[in-house]
Amino acid sequence: MQHSDILSRFGITSSSQTGLTARSPVDGATLATVAETDPALVPDLVANAARAFEAWRVVPAPRRGELVRLLGEELRAAKEDLGRLVSLEAGKIYQEGLGEVQEMIDICDFAVGLSRQLYGLTIASERPGHAMRETWHPAGPCLVISAFNFPVAVWSWNAALALVCGDPVIWKPSEKTPLTAAACQVIFERAVARFGDAPAHLNQVVQGGRAVGEALVAHPGLPVVSATGSTRMGREVAKVVAERFGRSILELGGNNAMIVAPSADLDMALRAILFSAVGTCGQRCTTLRRLIVHKDVAPTLLPRLKAAYATVPIGSPLESGVLMGPLVDADAFAAMQTALTKAKAEGGVVTGGERTLTDRFPNGYYVTPAIVEMPAQTDVVRHETFAPILYVLTYETLDEAIALQNAVPQGLSSCIFSTDVRETERFLSAAGSDCGIANVNIGPSGAEIGGAFGGEKETGGGRESGSDAWKAYMRRQTATVNYSSALPLAQGIKFDLG
Amino acid sequence: MQHSDILSRFGITSSSQTGLTARSPVDGATLATVAETDPALVPDLVANAARAFEAWRVVPAPRRGELVRLLGEELRAAKEDLGRLVSLEAGKIYQEGLGEVQEMIDICDFAVGLSRQLYGLTIASERPGHAMRETWHPAGPCLVISAFNFPVAVWSWNAALALVCGDPVIWKPSEKTPLTAAACQVIFERAVARFGDAPAHLNQVVQGGRAVGEALVAHPGLPVVSATGSTRMGREVAKVVAERFGRSILELGGNNAMIVAPSADLDMALRAILFSAVGTCGQRCTTLRRLIVHKDVAPTLLPRLKAAYATVPIGSPLESGVLMGPLVDADAFAAMQTALTKAKAEGGVVTGGERTLTDRFPNGYYVTPAIVEMPAQTDVVRHETFAPILYVLTYETLDEAIALQNAVPQGLSSCIFSTDVRETERFLSAAGSDCGIANVNIGPSGAEIGGAFGGEKETGGGRESGSDAWKAYMRRQTATVNYSSALPLAQGIKFDLG
Amino acid sequence: MQHSDILSRFGITSSSQTGLTARSPVDGATLATVAETDPALVPDLVANAARAFEAWRVVPAPRRGELVRLLGEELRAAKEDLGRLVSLEAGKIYQEGLGEVQEMIDICDFAVGLSRQLYGLTIASERPGHAMRETWHPAGPCLVISAFNFPVAVWSWNAALALVCGDPVIWKPSEKTPLTAAACQVIFERAVARFGDAPAHLNQVVQGGRAVGEALVAHPGLPVVSATGSTRMGREVAKVVAERFGRSILELGGNNAMIVAPSADLDMALRAILFSAVGTCGQRCTTLRRLIVHKDVAPTLLPRLKAAYATVPIGSPLESGVLMGPLVDADAFAAMQTALTKAKAEGGVVTGGERTLTDRFPNGYYVTPAIVEMPAQTDVVRHETFAPILYVLTYETLDEAIALQNAVPQGLSSCIFSTDVRETERFLSAAGSDCGIANVNIGPSGAEIGGAFGGEKETGGGRESGSDAWKAYMRRQTATVNYSSALPLAQGIKFDLG
Amino acid sequence: MQHSDILSRFGITSSSQTGLTARSPVDGATLATVAETDPALVPDLVANAARAFEAWRVVPAPRRGELVRLLGEELRAAKEDLGRLVSLEAGKIYQEGLGEVQEMIDICDFAVGLSRQLYGLTIASERPGHAMRETWHPAGPCLVISAFNFPVAVWSWNAALALVCGDPVIWKPSEKTPLTAAACQVIFERAVARFGDAPAHLNQVVQGGRAVGEALVAHPGLPVVSATGSTRMGREVAKVVAERFGRSILELGGNNAMIVAPSADLDMALRAILFSAVGTCGQRCTTLRRLIVHKDVAPTLLPRLKAAYATVPIGSPLESGVLMGPLVDADAFAAMQTALTKAKAEGGVVTGGERTLTDRFPNGYYVTPAIVEMPAQTDVVRHETFAPILYVLTYETLDEAIALQNAVPQGLSSCIFSTDVRETERFLSAAGSDCGIANVNIGPSGAEIGGAFGGEKETGGGRESGSDAWKAYMRRQTATVNYSSALPLAQGIKFDLG
Repeated sequence: MQHSDILSRFGITSSSQTGLTARSPVDGATLATVAETDPALVPDLVANAARAFEAWRVVPAPRRGELVRLLGEELRAAKEDLGRLVSLEAGKIYQEGLGEVQEMIDICDFAVGLSRQLYGLTIASERPGHAMRETWHPAGPCLVISAFNFPVAVWSWNAALALVCGDPVIWKPSEKTPLTAAACQVIFERAVARFGDAPAHLNQVVQGGRAVGEALVAHPGLPVVSATGSTRMGREVAKVVAERFGRSILELGGNNAMIVAPSADLDMALRAILFSAVGTCGQRCTTLRRLIVHKDVAPTLLPRLKAAYATVPIGSPLESGVLMGPLVDADAFAAMQTALTKAKAEGGVVTGGERTLTDRFPNGYYVTPAIVEMPAQTDVVRHETFAPILYVLTYETLDEAIALQNAVPQGLSSCIFSTDVRETERFLSAAGSDCGIANVNIGPSGAEIGGAFGGEKETGGGRESGSDAWKAYMRRQTATVNYSSALPLAQGIKFDLG
Repeated sequence: MQHSDILSRFGITSSSQTGLTARSPVDGATLATVAETDPALVPDLVANAARAFEAWRVVPAPRRGELVRLLGEELRAAKEDLGRLVSLEAGKIYQEGLGEVQEMIDICDFAVGLSRQLYGLTIASERPGHAMRETWHPAGPCLVISAFNFPVAVWSWNAALALVCGDPVIWKPSEKTPLTAAACQVIFERAVARFGDAPAHLNQVVQGGRAVGEALVAHPGLPVVSATGSTRMGREVAKVVAERFGRSILELGGNNAMIVAPSADLDMALRAILFSAVGTCGQRCTTLRRLIVHKDVAPTLLPRLKAAYATVPIGSPLESGVLMGPLVDADAFAAMQTALTKAKAEGGVVTGGERTLTDRFPNGYYVTPAIVEMPAQTDVVRHETFAPILYVLTYETLDEAIALQNAVPQGLSSCIFSTDVRETERFLSAAGSDCGIANVNIGPSGAEIGGAFGGEKETGGGRESGSDAWKAYMRRQTATVNYSSALPLAQGIKFDLG
Repeated sequence: MQHSDILSRFGITSSSQTGLTARSPVDGATLATVAETDPALVPDLVANAARAFEAWRVVPAPRRGELVRLLGEELRAAKEDLGRLVSLEAGKIYQEGLGEVQEMIDICDFAVGLSRQLYGLTIASERPGHAMRETWHPAGPCLVISAFNFPVAVWSWNAALALVCGDPVIWKPSEKTPLTAAACQVIFERAVARFGDAPAHLNQVVQGGRAVGEALVAHPGLPVVSATGSTRMGREVAKVVAERFGRSILELGGNNAMIVAPSADLDMALRAILFSAVGTCGQRCTTLRRLIVHKDVAPTLLPRLKAAYATVPIGSPLESGVLMGPLVDADAFAAMQTALTKAKAEGGVVTGGERTLTDRFPNGYYVTPAIVEMPAQTDVVRHETFAPILYVLTYETLDEAIALQNAVPQGLSSCIFSTDVRETERFLSAAGSDCGIANVNIGPSGAEIGGAFGGEKETGGGRESGSDAWKAYMRRQTATVNYSSALPLAQGIKFDLG
Repeated sequence: MQHSDILSRFGITSSSQTGLTARSPVDGATLATVAETDPALVPDLVANAARAFEAWRVVPAPRRGELVRLLGEELRAAKEDLGRLVSLEAGKIYQEGLGEVQEMIDICDFAVGLSRQLYGLTIASERPGHAMRETWHPAGPCLVISAFNFPVAVWSWNAALALVCGDPVIWKPSEKTPLTAAACQVIFERAVARFGDAPAHLNQVVQGGRAVGEALVAHPGLPVVSATGSTRMGREVAKVVAERFGRSILELGGNNAMIVAPSADLDMALRAILFSAVGTCGQRCTTLRRLIVHKDVAPTLLPRLKAAYATVPIGSPLESGVLMGPLVDADAFAAMQTALTKAKAEGGVVTGGERTLTDRFPNGYYVTPAIVEMPAQTDVVRHETFAPILYVLTYETLDEAIALQNAVPQGLSSCIFSTDVRETERFLSAAGSDCGIANVNIGPSGAEIGGAFGGEKETGGGRESGSDAWKAYMRRQTATVNYSSALPLAQGIKFDLG
């Protein structure tokens, strides 16, 4: 299939207009140019969203769920097309592109069920003739900022919940992936058309860079800001949103580790490492970046791992059989090389990590995945580099392994490979992993949408997707109705005139 | 009872040391001087808390609950003494002092029950042979910043939950109320002594002002910061804590309104207004500040209200029969006068609001409560002045009344007096009050501890006390255990070497 | 459309075989004859279900949800056809037939969302190094017994949840409505075919009467029995299932009342009475049967009600514009006449209740709806007669009205029309309605699937549909994992050899 | 301490009246005689409870909680006395008597917390202007039937929850343990006296045997029946209560197994076996009765187990150092001997099981604990014998072990000793243990009160104690309030006159 064929499925033409240029990591080719949103228009967009909110918040939630159900149907229908476009624009392999769209479908199904729940509580009151309850109401327009590496799923995680919760969405995708965002808007509008009576502007896409992003983040009309990206960006967002008393849902950097214990099933560990360290060319927020191997296991595991690394099929992510596509761009490649250089300076022994396929893709940044055996958890290891670099450390006791796992600023995902329940439960306990995600005998990446997704520390503390992550899109109201004819005070206080 | 007698119950002597001077609003007399905490010591205090956390987080929660149960017992035993000290140092009437201690007792009882819950979820996994669950673990040391007007309850709301959740507490009380804080620490230590094997430094009191507060807020070793006070203070805290990826629980300003509808039971409304506008001399965060009366009701209600205001017994809060004590200090009085002046300039008609009892208490700031009839919701009305000023506005339709209620920057508490279920449920709906607390036929103040307490917008969005407010003191972990011998990927992704 | 055309949509032909004869209440005509299930085959059917259970219980719940999602899609596609068949076989108007299918679709959507939840709890343990959790596992094959009046929705309420919960279903529909059951099985199999790898026998339809029903109810291989029908039937089921330690979900008789208070919106009350008393020809379990009107309102309301009753369009339920179809059969008509005769003997004044349209439908049992003004709540009023008879009682105080409402053996649905929040909340309080469903300003019928459906007392206590009704289809397991190397006993017990 | 001294602590005198004779298993001596309740008085007792219910159900739940809190305080104060009386009357060792009272205290603490929760739900409605919620209301008077082996804890599990839930209690203790019941009533009344304004008859003790029990079970005025005891008794209760549409909470027989896997920590397993098989002289419902040992482990484990059995200190349960007291009476001893004889006939090899200490306690039934190595899971093994008999079986694969574990009619408690997470999680999965309780590396007995306690199959399906077991004491109400001026029907049904 030609690039332009994929684009045309969503009505995107390779226009000559000035604006944001979408470039494929596959070969560096320009895919299309999309109009940028002028930051000066932000107030208008927010006003649109505010109007949509006035109407949408009083639409019954199950009816709002119907829109999301239709969105799910449209995503099912567009799965292959959108999966391919994701592959083309973000550079991940087609299988992962499909997986990403499946995640969108899954969250829609989940959100539809949620639309008849959005459970608050009724609560026993201490006063006679009083009924207490807690209700969740729509919070207001929600800003979604997403990153290039999950160019569509992150939007859907937020949008499916926000829409069911009664909140219109303004979406600022990564500047690197404007086309998939445009395609999602097309799909969304298909659902809206079938739905019938939705207010206008329930989902608005803002194409652009830092300037428009900052204008959005600062706007008081967006009480909920869900931002996925770097810790640096998240810190800025957090500060600005906090100062205006908005609510941030931050999904920032991860520095995800796997502990491989003596009792581990090494075949499984090996497969898990491979998928989670090399998949998406090391550019998932949940990518495995640190391997903490028991010193008795390392001599067995590492040679097998290196052998596997050497056989990973690297190439165009659109070709079948390929497991590892390109880095997103030249900057990513440069950052990777900087990290490897630093790692060496800090005592690391590097295997792999070179650029490859330059003949075939002179403007694509393909690399071999890198394994770096480190003498200690140095600076470079504690830092997240968005590339397929796997640092390897060894340990002697589980305490030590957990301490290593926790001794980084990030707190997204973590895992242990062990068949010893004392180890695995210890890892999951209050004294275990300090991450938001902790897995046993699974790699750190590839979360299901049914759980809450997110992490602690510099990862930002936000939660998206399943469990009660939806509460972040609503406001809570504690209500007490006095249906008696008396007015008792709480805590038995007496306060009466004469 | 002499002032010094009350103090001696908690081993506090009226020392001559330099430091923070506690002054009674009752008569302006100096009660005692307490040592200030040097901001340079903050790292040590945080290190203490970190050590306590290492031990406390692995103490089983029901055992942690036992400490809080003992604290509740000690509070029951000290109820009268502490209630009196609250009255003396914060200036609220003794009945309210007792009520405040009762609230402490209630939250302890609640937290004890919670200590065998702290419920996470088990969740259906999409992968065969996988078990998913969500667990809540202790978050780390918790900073509590409290204000003078609830000098002890706010600490207990936070501390009872934090301790059960596994988090040590550092408490910075208001500079205006160091003695009640010291008394709480004494009571806490009684409980610790009975408990037996608690780690040291589970609760540390930091006496001091802005400098030490800022040092605490900025410290990365305090992942949870619960701050009660002004919006100005909260904004600063929010920003600093967000930037370091901590979690803030903010309980800031309120500008609480009551809508009185044509169908209201006016006798009840009158009592509710009186307690919530005049109680604590208008210095509760949930004090009624705005009365939004239907235009047909105002002619009946206002004369009755003014008559009641004229008979409110004002005097020393330690004397029985008194319902209204002093403002906290001269600054509070000045701010009140400024507001009244502004209100007049904006068209308000003021009744009351003068200083009184100057003969008996030349250094105490007693005032008559003020009613200000306003032509519109002007600037001064939208601003929270911490004093017994009640602005009165009239309305014609419920839509208008709700719009007025919501058109202020704060979002803490709100209420409607109406017997019409269409009005009351509308008020509680997504299109109703935008506050965290919404009551029907009860005033805005006097929440029970069973509900979540807090508000939206400039009130800061935090929630304390009941419902699932405890989650703010913990970190959430989504765990998936693969107990199969296969490694399926979520979303059905295929990723395999050869 | 011809009757046979509707049947052919589901592959049902008007065969000549012996067996169960399906007869349309519309005109008394035989629609088709379906094979009856020999009670001797029950052990085989249960064995089929047991085999299906072995496989289905370990299919991940979200995958089970996918089958229910497909079922929802097939129901959407078949909505008009199935709605028409319901109308034809059960005699309810086509609009209600469509509504019933919509309810099936709704519960499927809900169940799909649920399939990623099925939440148990993680729970704080009192012992160090212990992790406690509560998980919900599939309970086993589930027997569904349904009644003629909701011939398809009741199955779906149970089946959608049971299937997601991991339980195969055996369905015994009413002998009066075998065809709609057969049609549902056809639709179900369409979903199974698309799903792919479901085990055989996930849903088995058993056609027949009392004998086969009794054999099923008594079988120990069916741990969950959901039975909808008469109190007499339910009592038998309850006893037999209890004796074998099975779990019953009983949805039995209702005797649903509406209280009309002085403040009621009479226009709304009138509409609500009409729909809930006359709809489905008075043959809903939630049909309004008792009208408890304030004595001051009765003189206004009753004439309007009688006037409305006089204009209700009665006729073939398949014709548009008709609001009231026939009784299901001659027995139903006879029971109605018996009740009216008894009511008169007990002092009732009857309006309506005569047979009509005998010319056009000599073998259909059409009646005019009856209003019976009663001097007191006599025997006949306390008894559920499945016909459009509305008993009218008057009251003076709300206490009296609530006492009347509660003084019947049944406890399904109830409602109040009042705009006074003190009355409405009192009605919903612990001292109010004793029914499982209590509505305000809505009739007793027409529940949403998001709430738990069912009632107390002779209604049987079961709950179906929304909220956590799904738990009845699962078994709960409380698990504690000791991951320490010590063995502390709960409650601090010491028990050690030397 | 003399027996009479213990009794006098609760005002119980060794009277000469005719009635129920309490006899100590320690030495067979008569302790006292208590008046029996005439079955003819049952209607009066139920009427008392009904009156108490009318008042208690509208007392706010947190206030009801205060009574339970005081009960907890009184239990703390009486812990040693009541523990000793339990030991004396039920024959369990003093340590276990204390543990049982601690459990009472724990459930009181838990229930107090619950009293500010009793959470229902607010639920998203599909209709505009409608608010849906689910509330839990008091169910009515609750009958508690308890067994001799937990003569006081079972009452408290039920009573603490029932009282907080608003239900008065009628308690029929075992005929074998009337004195501990009388003592509990004394303690309860101490709490009531401090509480102040409780209605009379909140807790009524009915002393007697089968006749009065049957009269209670059959009474329609007791909607909730919680019965602990034999499967035979439970089956009767279940049937009778089901037929009158009451709700049963059944805690019946257990036949609890432990699987010891090759990877088990045998030291821990040994300790766990000892406590759970020998503790309470094998007379806990959760006593370990079946040991399913891997064939490779048996040769190591069994000799160690026999050696430990041989050293268990047997004697008066009131003496310190003793770990195993007497059987409850001669019947229990006879049943044990019958079982051992049968076991031998079925191929079992018996070690121990003889009567002992006849010199010192000619009227006490002390036995040595029995280990019975069985060739297969025969009839006698599938039957619960309430005595310290441990059947030992071996297995080869985990599938086989789980199948053995599940192949008994009872389903209360189960456990596995294994350090292999694949085994432990498999044991806890849908395809694992079919019991209500499933433990890992803990014996089957000694549950914490924070979890739901109870089991499946012939164990009866009831749940008591923690989690949401409280819901069994309440009735659920689904309420929808229409606060709009329109009357939309659910499922979009159209039904309108002209």
